[in-house]
Amino acid sequence: MFLQIVFLLSFLLSTSHATVQDFCVADLKSADGPAGFPCVPPAKVTSDDFVFAGLSEAANVTNIINAAVSPAFVGQFPGVNGLDLSAARLDLGPAGVIPLHTHPGANELLIVNQGHILAGFISSSNVVYQKVLKRGELMVFPQGLLHFQIAAHKRKAIAFAVFSSANPGLQILDFALFASNFSTPLIAQTTFLDPDLVKKLKSVLGGSG
Amino acid sequence: MFLQIVFLLSFLLSTSHATVQDFCVADLKSADGPAGFPCVPPAKVTSDDFVFAGLSEAANVTNIINAAVSPAFVGQFPGVNGLDLSAARLDLGPAGVIPLHTHPGANELLIVNQGHILAGFISSSNVVYQKVLKRGELMVFPQGLLHFQIAAHKRKAIAFAVFSSANPGLQILDFALFASNFSTPLIAQTTFLDPDLVKKLKSVLGGSG
Amino acid sequence: MFLQIVFLLSFLLSTSHATVQDFCVADLKSADGPAGFPCVPPAKVTSDDFVFAGLSEAANVTNIINAAVSPAFVGQFPGVNGLDLSAARLDLGPAGVIPLHTHPGANELLIVNQGHILAGFISSSNVVYQKVLKRGELMVFPQGLLHFQIAAHKRKAIAFAVFSSANPGLQILDFALFASNFSTPLIAQTTFLDPDLVKKLKSVLGGSG
Amino acid sequence: MFLQIVFLLSFLLSTSHATVQDFCVADLKSADGPAGFPCVPPAKVTSDDFVFAGLSEAANVTNIINAAVSPAFVGQFPGVNGLDLSAARLDLGPAGVIPLHTHPGANELLIVNQGHILAGFISSSNVVYQKVLKRGELMVFPQGLLHFQIAAHKRKAIAFAVFSSANPGLQILDFALFASNFSTPLIAQTTFLDPDLVKKLKSVLGGSG
Amino acid sequence: MFLQIVFLLSFLLSTSHATVQDFCVADLKSADGPAGFPCVPPAKVTSDDFVFAGLSEAANVTNIINAAVSPAFVGQFPGVNGLDLSAARLDLGPAGVIPLHTHPGANELLIVNQGHILAGFISSSNVVYQKVLKRGELMVFPQGLLHFQIAAHKRKAIAFAVFSSANPGLQILDFALFASNFSTPLIAQTTFLDPDLVKKLKSVLGGSG
Amino acid sequence: MFLQIVFLLSFLLSTSHATVQDFCVADLKSADGPAGFPCVPPAKVTSDDFVFAGLSEAANVTNIINAAVSPAFVGQFPGVNGLDLSAARLDLGPAGVIPLHTHPGANELLIVNQGHILAGFISSSNVVYQKVLKRGELMVFPQGLLHFQIAAHKRKAIAFAVFSSANPGLQILDFALFASNFSTPLIAQTTFLDPDLVKKLKSVLGGSG
Repeated sequence: MFLQIVFLLSFLLSTSHATVQDFCVADLKSADGPAGFPCVPPAKVTSDDFVFAGLSEAANVTNIINAAVSPAFVGQFPGVNGLDLSAARLDLGPAGVIPLHTHPGANELLIVNQGHILAGFISSSNVVYQKVLKRGELMVFPQGLLHFQIAAHKRKAIAFAVFSSANPGLQILDFALFASNFSTPLIAQTTFLDPDLVKKLKSVLGGSG
Repeated sequence: MFLQIVFLLSFLLSTSHATVQDFCVADLKSADGPAGFPCVPPAKVTSDDFVFAGLSEAANVTNIINAAVSPAFVGQFPGVNGLDLSAARLDLGPAGVIPLHTHPGANELLIVNQGHILAGFISSSNVVYQKVLKRGELMVFPQGLLHFQIAAHKRKAIAFAVFSSANPGLQILDFALFASNFSTPLIAQTTFLDPDLVKKLKSVLGGSG
Repeated sequence: MFLQIVFLLSFLLSTSHATVQDFCVADLKSADGPAGFPCVPPAKVTSDDFVFAGLSEAANVTNIINAAVSPAFVGQFPGVNGLDLSAARLDLGPAGVIPLHTHPGANELLIVNQGHILAGFISSSNVVYQKVLKRGELMVFPQGLLHFQIAAHKRKAIAFAVFSSANPGLQILDFALFASNFSTPLIAQTTFLDPDLVKKLKSVLGGSG
Repeated sequence: MFLQIVFLLSFLLSTSHATVQDFCVADLKSADGPAGFPCVPPAKVTSDDFVFAGLSEAANVTNIINAAVSPAFVGQFPGVNGLDLSAARLDLGPAGVIPLHTHPGANELLIVNQGHILAGFISSSNVVYQKVLKRGELMVFPQGLLHFQIAAHKRKAIAFAVFSSANPGLQILDFALFASNFSTPLIAQTTFLDPDLVKKLKSVLGGSG
Repeated sequence: MFLQIVFLLSFLLSTSHATVQDFCVADLKSADGPAGFPCVPPAKVTSDDFVFAGLSEAANVTNIINAAVSPAFVGQFPGVNGLDLSAARLDLGPAGVIPLHTHPGANELLIVNQGHILAGFISSSNVVYQKVLKRGELMVFPQGLLHFQIAAHKRKAIAFAVFSSANPGLQILDFALFASNFSTPLIAQTTFLDPDLVKKLKSVLGGSG
Repeated sequence: MFLQIVFLLSFLLSTSHATVQDFCVADLKSADGPAGFPCVPPAKVTSDDFVFAGLSEAANVTNIINAAVSPAFVGQFPGVNGLDLSAARLDLGPAGVIPLHTHPGANELLIVNQGHILAGFISSSNVVYQKVLKRGELMVFPQGLLHFQIAAHKRKAIAFAVFSSANPGLQILDFALFASNFSTPLIAQTTFLDPDLVKKLKSVLGGSG
């Protein structure tokens, strides 16, 4: 009987082994496609491929926004490829601000880890939904809408954001406008902002055009 | 033999009639859900449900932007419900501008119908992709990214935009900031814009907060 | 402070640059997959990749149907890859006809650009939904259903069709039957058409078998 | 300790009971939507909801095609709602024919149960892929393409077709043309078929127009 | 000019207000469907609908597993409806164990918040991928695979799990077998476990049959 | 006129030939991705690629479970790639048992071909839904839930299972626990099973750890 079991087992394993895999760890050296990256062959996959340690330390927040966003998207964490999930760590110094931004390709769920965070988003109907979140509280931000996070009560804060895509994207409004090659006359025409103001902000943020 | 055919036919039709329908015209009086609106019963559907005439006339462009966007989303055109498609008409007077905006839930394909249009979008990597489009030319704008359309060469222009969703959404940057209830101090904090400028634009666009 | 901004900026850009892209312009030289083609590396992408000029001129309609369909599917317009959108231009001479056809993999939205078009589709319940469309009017055709477009009122007409897939497919009924290698006896058996008629139409349209 | 277990158990069950369900048996009395029908409340669901016996008997094939298609789509089998699966039974008498047809909304996988079946489909490139299938053999038919099944070798045959949708649809070419309200002049214009032939087939199949 | 702006604004808002919404907060009193729950009308939605405070406190872990799972699925947190995201909090006492379980409908991403957690999953190829995770580390668990989490190093631990569905489901192996109405003879037949052992575990966990 | 037809035909074929294909037969020699395998070029595809004969013969059931599962997943049947469908044949000797298992990535629909089968699944709410199925009866098993099939009435049985994915996966509970490298202490901790029992079952099924 034991031999029969072993026979069954090897039969089942051999037929399923060839191409069946339950996951698709990204092979970042190959070209990606609309659904993500090609998979690393299962024989080369180890436990480490499903683990990401890059968010375990606080990022440096000695910068103008007194804050930092550290991504664990598919480019950093190949294990999320094809799983419709990814994450980012938000470190906010006292009065730290994650400026107004969108994730073009994903919904977001925020989990506050430390401190208090004032978070909000603006709907297509131009309504702001915002709240001060405490440790352990969650907030969702629907896909593609402008939103922000600010350390509240002048205290340091930490949060984890998770996304409904392995590649959520991140478009920071100020960088899109003032750190890009978007020409000053076009910015003025399409935003009603004064060209002189645009030039000033570009000189700070590095924009050209 | 003829009777047999008729028998077969009525059998096939009766079994399939009950619940099978190839489309799902929106019943806008019912609550929508994540996938769209409930369907109008097929017996009440007519050819007119699949047709929309609301974009056949030019919209009034006597306004500050010298332009107008007329939507044929599921709210206006119930026939697109569940089809992952919708449309909008862009009317641009000479120097008309569709200000910087996003569609949070859809990709866009633009078809220029008349005149020349300077169109562009800004990527997550802060690169602007833009081009002057002529009549009959197409341009795509990936989901959730800031983009704009401007009548070029000081001539009137018309275009149709189509979207990969029946409910693409439309977030106009200036309205989100200056026509919403987004508080002036928060705008200043999350955009680096000067509070006095914010107040001035709010007074024009009607924002509160 | 300015140095700190630049530091933040380069940090954010460098981490996101490697693999994050908001689009996936098709590399048509690589093999496609179920979700489309692999992406061109973002560094090689230019504004032109998002623009398609191939539909700006009228196609030649000097043919038996007095009409032409010009596709801007992913094979012609690599910028639509992964965007669940594509387009085609319909040129119809006076009395021009786009014969009965289906798009196996996409819903369609038609925008009439010039002239009048009689358009219709047949549902699974064998009901015809049809209407004469005027300039600027829209009509939808649910996925996979037989439909047609005819220039009405003996005048030339132009329309743009857009699709809910980058690769909608196009199966023209007459070509499937009479321009393929579908054997005459099988056609007769599966359509009730007379074999002599089938042979005659094959001789015109070039079918074999 | 036992009490603690029971406590944990009831806690977990109570919190999850309210709205979590792993399935969504169709409530066919409510309006459907783009994703299917609303769910029967889980408390009213029994084992019978997941079982369908309607395909266990052969259908009557005393008709012109010497064949019958019996559906187990969501309208007949509410348990498939939301599962992206459904089925149909094909009964073919000797020389029975399932005429040329499409499933507008689903791919098909055919499993031959008895006898031999000549099955085939026509691609968008007008290539016919066909083969005589034996008992236990499988064939796939990609979404929306014209295909057929014929009893081979003058023997009775049975097969089960399964689909990648709970509502695959079924458009039979002859019924769409000759059992519908599609007007004879329009059929002639859009198919190149002779109006007299169209009228003759309509008189047999019951078409109007 | 100001009047014109206000005119434009109210036009755009009025046309888009009726049915366009960027989110779909669950109306838990209505029947759900395959895509989730119907939406609360946007006029009744407030900031609180996007926030969930139910995971901010530690759950009671005085039970047999010395652990607790607190869900923030759509049934608890209506704001995640349609967003393809949800969360759960894991509280583990020293030596606490989340027993072997699956999420039938979602991938999982785990974020360790406090302490060390030994986490792992078993693939379809019967390979165990496991690792001791530290604070701030992430691990993914592909959909439907058996996995577990254990407090390591005899210390208390806290983690947040996030899921790629608003309704991920939770099937705990021991409860499925020994706290259900699964009959003892069938359990023995389908698992090779001894009937006496099954009865003993049922008496502890409350199973019947 | 004939020349014009031929002209139209070759025009349409040439433009669509390059990259449009209606199917995506798997190239199993290339790396797969989240959506499946790259496609074989259409010119190399033949009718045989859409047919699978590997399930036409009964599998050997001379083994401990008196049963066998023979897959026609994408690894065995490349024609299902991208079609969201696959199949498996179940051969059950008298008293044959398909042990408790899940398909992590797909819903299942079972079609009984011969004999009687007792089939059932366990929901997340720990309710067992089971029934004895007769020839021609169907049963569905929602994604990721534990389920089983047993030959009833001491007679041989055959069934075909079909899945809502080309790669449904198969996790057999006993193999996951006792034929894997899952360590005995961890199994005991996460299942409440006695370590001695675990060791005994491992010695039979070949597990290590």
